[in-house]
Amino acid sequence: MTECYDVVVVGAGPVGLMLSTCLLRLGSYKIKQIDLRPFPTKSGRAAGIQARTLDVLQDLDLKRAIMSYNPGRIYEVAFWDASKDEAGIRRTGTAKTYPDYIDTRHPFSTILHQGRIEGIFLDDLRERGHEVQRTWTIAGFRNEPCGEYPDHPLVVDLVSVDGRDRSIVRTKYLFGADGARSRVRDLLGVPMLSKDPTMHVWSVIDGVVKSDFPDIQMKCTVHSSKGSAMIIPHGNNVVRIYAQMYPKNGQEPLAFATVPKIQQAANEILAPYKVEWERVDWHSAYRIGQGLASSYSLDERVFIGGDACHTHSPKAGQGMNYGFLDAHNLAWKLHLVESGFLRRSMLKTYEGERKLVAAKLIEFDATYANLFSSRKPAGEKKVAPSSEFVQVFKQNTFLTSGYGVEYPVNSLTWPINSTPLNTTALRPGRSFPTATVTRVIDAHPVYLEQEIPFNGSYRIYIFAGKPAITSKAIFDLANHLQAKSSVFRRYQRKDVDTSYEGRHNPHSPFFTFLLVFHAPRSTIEIQEFLPDYFACYRYHVYADDREMSQRGEAKERNAHIKMGFDADKGGIVVVRPDGYVGCVLDLSEGRTSGSALNRYFKATVPEHEHDAVAARL
Amino acid sequence: MTECYDVVVVGAGPVGLMLSTCLLRLGSYKIKQIDLRPFPTKSGRAAGIQARTLDVLQDLDLKRAIMSYNPGRIYEVAFWDASKDEAGIRRTGTAKTYPDYIDTRHPFSTILHQGRIEGIFLDDLRERGHEVQRTWTIAGFRNEPCGEYPDHPLVVDLVSVDGRDRSIVRTKYLFGADGARSRVRDLLGVPMLSKDPTMHVWSVIDGVVKSDFPDIQMKCTVHSSKGSAMIIPHGNNVVRIYAQMYPKNGQEPLAFATVPKIQQAANEILAPYKVEWERVDWHSAYRIGQGLASSYSLDERVFIGGDACHTHSPKAGQGMNYGFLDAHNLAWKLHLVESGFLRRSMLKTYEGERKLVAAKLIEFDATYANLFSSRKPAGEKKVAPSSEFVQVFKQNTFLTSGYGVEYPVNSLTWPINSTPLNTTALRPGRSFPTATVTRVIDAHPVYLEQEIPFNGSYRIYIFAGKPAITSKAIFDLANHLQAKSSVFRRYQRKDVDTSYEGRHNPHSPFFTFLLVFHAPRSTIEIQEFLPDYFACYRYHVYADDREMSQRGEAKERNAHIKMGFDADKGGIVVVRPDGYVGCVLDLSEGRTSGSALNRYFKATVPEHEHDAVAARL
Repeated sequence: MTECYDVVVVGAGPVGLMLSTCLLRLGSYKIKQIDLRPFPTKSGRAAGIQARTLDVLQDLDLKRAIMSYNPGRIYEVAFWDASKDEAGIRRTGTAKTYPDYIDTRHPFSTILHQGRIEGIFLDDLRERGHEVQRTWTIAGFRNEPCGEYPDHPLVVDLVSVDGRDRSIVRTKYLFGADGARSRVRDLLGVPMLSKDPTMHVWSVIDGVVKSDFPDIQMKCTVHSSKGSAMIIPHGNNVVRIYAQMYPKNGQEPLAFATVPKIQQAANEILAPYKVEWERVDWHSAYRIGQGLASSYSLDERVFIGGDACHTHSPKAGQGMNYGFLDAHNLAWKLHLVESGFLRRSMLKTYEGERKLVAAKLIEFDATYANLFSSRKPAGEKKVAPSSEFVQVFKQNTFLTSGYGVEYPVNSLTWPINSTPLNTTALRPGRSFPTATVTRVIDAHPVYLEQEIPFNGSYRIYIFAGKPAITSKAIFDLANHLQAKSSVFRRYQRKDVDTSYEGRHNPHSPFFTFLLVFHAPRSTIEIQEFLPDYFACYRYHVYADDREMSQRGEAKERNAHIKMGFDADKGGIVVVRPDGYVGCVLDLSEGRTSGSALNRYFKATVPEHEHDAVAARL
Repeated sequence: MTECYDVVVVGAGPVGLMLSTCLLRLGSYKIKQIDLRPFPTKSGRAAGIQARTLDVLQDLDLKRAIMSYNPGRIYEVAFWDASKDEAGIRRTGTAKTYPDYIDTRHPFSTILHQGRIEGIFLDDLRERGHEVQRTWTIAGFRNEPCGEYPDHPLVVDLVSVDGRDRSIVRTKYLFGADGARSRVRDLLGVPMLSKDPTMHVWSVIDGVVKSDFPDIQMKCTVHSSKGSAMIIPHGNNVVRIYAQMYPKNGQEPLAFATVPKIQQAANEILAPYKVEWERVDWHSAYRIGQGLASSYSLDERVFIGGDACHTHSPKAGQGMNYGFLDAHNLAWKLHLVESGFLRRSMLKTYEGERKLVAAKLIEFDATYANLFSSRKPAGEKKVAPSSEFVQVFKQNTFLTSGYGVEYPVNSLTWPINSTPLNTTALRPGRSFPTATVTRVIDAHPVYLEQEIPFNGSYRIYIFAGKPAITSKAIFDLANHLQAKSSVFRRYQRKDVDTSYEGRHNPHSPFFTFLLVFHAPRSTIEIQEFLPDYFACYRYHVYADDREMSQRGEAKERNAHIKMGFDADKGGIVVVRPDGYVGCVLDLSEGRTSGSALNRYFKATVPEHEHDAVAARL
């Protein structure tokens, strides 16, 4: 008997670990995960977690573990340039990491090295009984459906790094998260489309320093007459410094950039300030290059993600973030296909969505990294007129925060075809905006966008406006959703789950409703205002009444208006399980709203009734 | 050889555990802690943590552990009364737990049962190598100084509960946290001054319920024609219900109030709504009574705290809070006396401060508890006209939040003798208000009042106004603090500690400075604006510039103005190690400010130079 898995994951860096972590929150999947390396990362490497990524990690209940390390938090960036006499450096300005118009609960980048991050995932996975098999790699695979294993068409050939052990397994899916030199990508025969490689060489060093540089606890970009550097505080007095290096032609960066040489380069760039190292945790060196895989998947069965798909300079702190979101994007789609709620062809949207946003990132990165690197010696024309660099930095904060990432229109992401929204906050293809509202049953102020954990269900927000005005629309909607032809009815449990544990999903694991009235909390009577169909979501009924509060943190904006809805009449937002807006609909009396909701889901659920029957309710 | 301890703690409930926890954060004290009970509390009992108490627990780094249990959080209270026909009940109104004018980071009561709370403390203590010795009690003690044990004048006679083991130890201090029937208090011969005991009997039950009562997740007070009840949500679907009971004369409450009887009483009071119990975790019953110990201490060597000193109704959720703050108040004073920074007579302020505030609480509680209890049967005059009850509740939220607690003027708490403050936010004897500012070295927005953990040092906040205006005052102050006659110089280390670990206390473990400029962060150059004496507090230099930020959370108030200072000229606030304001001083050029600071501390440090020399620097 061949061993069968749901998913084989190649690679146990952040991206591969993210996929397993997501999947094991969604179901009891059988996962085989292998990694070349004998041990997880100890320190250094990727470290930047951008705001939108932290939202996603919070949905996975991993934020607390991250914050318990007291990571670096970067609220502002300082720009340093050569002083006028070119003998030293001077601060020319500062900017917020994310300017005020970026709508986030986390107005900072979080910095925690990859060793800690892998550790957090590994601890979490261990609690769920999942272990990584180390010093193993993949030798090959083929798509070979056979009657004996109808659900496991992939045959994967695994081999231990020392070549002594070999194992052939079957699986439904294969995920290659095996980095820039991905073996899975090679086996797929997918080429990396690279930009012209540049000759810029950079080094990086992490550790504890003593320094008279006044901004040593700030993120700094430094362009001195001696070259360029970047400083990234890592929390707990640990600092990372990137310094540009100038090896001779053909010399390998890592061989050239010894610790003393990196330290010397940093000190030359930062002169007249001095940096003294009390402890060095990690160092490395690399050439800057950008690349994008021409394809991300094969047959909706084999996928690659993270550095296997896209590589770029580490300076913008994006690599791990895009990799995390690759895995996150794939995980819920795999889960819903396997559960009978999503048709298999929807897996094509993984590449459609993730490759597009990676291409945009790489375009930005090429400009940014080039502006960052300057040529030596001082006499030559400097490449980066600081003002241009600062301009590019500022123009791209929306992108680098993660909130600027926008998925294209596809079956999962509809263009607005309802009343045009009078706002840019809510937008199909982007993450659902923040909104603070009051939960009716316990008067807790809550962050609406965080109310549902990552559990595989679509989040259908009904902004219900004024109760007296929308009452008929809401009762009509409930009726329509229970009609015989409704997708909602097809995927509904026989009995409504009224338990506390089932509070997020009384009807179905595939969708949940949240209802937000524009009325003071104490006036909302759930049993009176809502039909039974919605009343069973009693933990998800909210008052959009924060504008009426005077509490210190201040007059917050009306959530209805922020979303672009009429505060009396409301509207409907379907948010995908990954927190991205799928579609925006009118809330109106009669059949319109219910029909539109059904249309959205009918376009993505399996076409054949019998596939849906297999759904894991 | 007799075994010698720094402190013997009798009782390992929340109050006794709090004392040990505080002391072990301040120094490596040798503590013997005993408890009658074979096991810690499993569930039930005290549960309410008020906002100011949560601040204190946060200073001790215990908030994260508390919040990890997803405790109940009470933002609002609903008032239910008999319906007009007296056949059922109806909601007559709601009120915020803490109205908006209460300045807090935690605008809610936190509810976590005593089992969890003791567990959090015990885990923390275990990590520091401290264990409780169980099923032991105290048989007696005497103050018997002797040449052989000059530092350990108390002789304490301990005995195992089964009477088989006996142990005589010596100690510097004895703390009785052994509850309402305190043996230490009895041994001291201190009487409890009790109010007339009332005949009201109450029962209480914790567990998981199913109910159609719409406010079952809210804190509710219920006055129906069948009696009174209170509902307290405990988080995770657990609910506590207090129900008034009517045993026959002389019948013991606990014998009378069986689980079925309590459940029945609750259902009668809440009718027509029904409560069904899926699980019962704990129940109890008691008579309401108020009592205050006539004295809290003997010879500045023996102290009692918590229920040993003050008893009252549990309804206002105050007991554990006052007990915690008793221990907290005593701990830092003991530590500073033992460290040579505080003269022994200052220990008298423990009783002076804590007894006064307990007396005020008891006065409120007598009114509140009486209004709460109504007489049966329905025909008789009901005691609690709801409006009066609601009025008393609302009038006392400032007290019950903890922020209304005010210590009297004494050597540690000076009246305002500087320029009168144009605000009520800052007030000697009360806790230091909240203020959000930006840390200069890393641009983090921080909560100024939380910047220093509970570490035994006084926190001297210098609101430094506009740098150009206060520059001379700040340099003058630094000079004066280093003068030969200065207390600050006397308690200063030989070498300034410039390490990251020593960042809170570069000069001395007994005091720390925090400097807040009213200027944009990026304009503040620490090396230029501050003399070396203050520049070594580089982690404690802040910009009061949040009013200039537009970030979602909104236009926050200027911290200088909130404190009542002129935003250009600033002022000085001395905050005691427990977070209470000690004194408020002008910031002015010349010798005035330095002299005033010296005067404040000279009145409390040991009078003899040689005592101070022993100080543990």
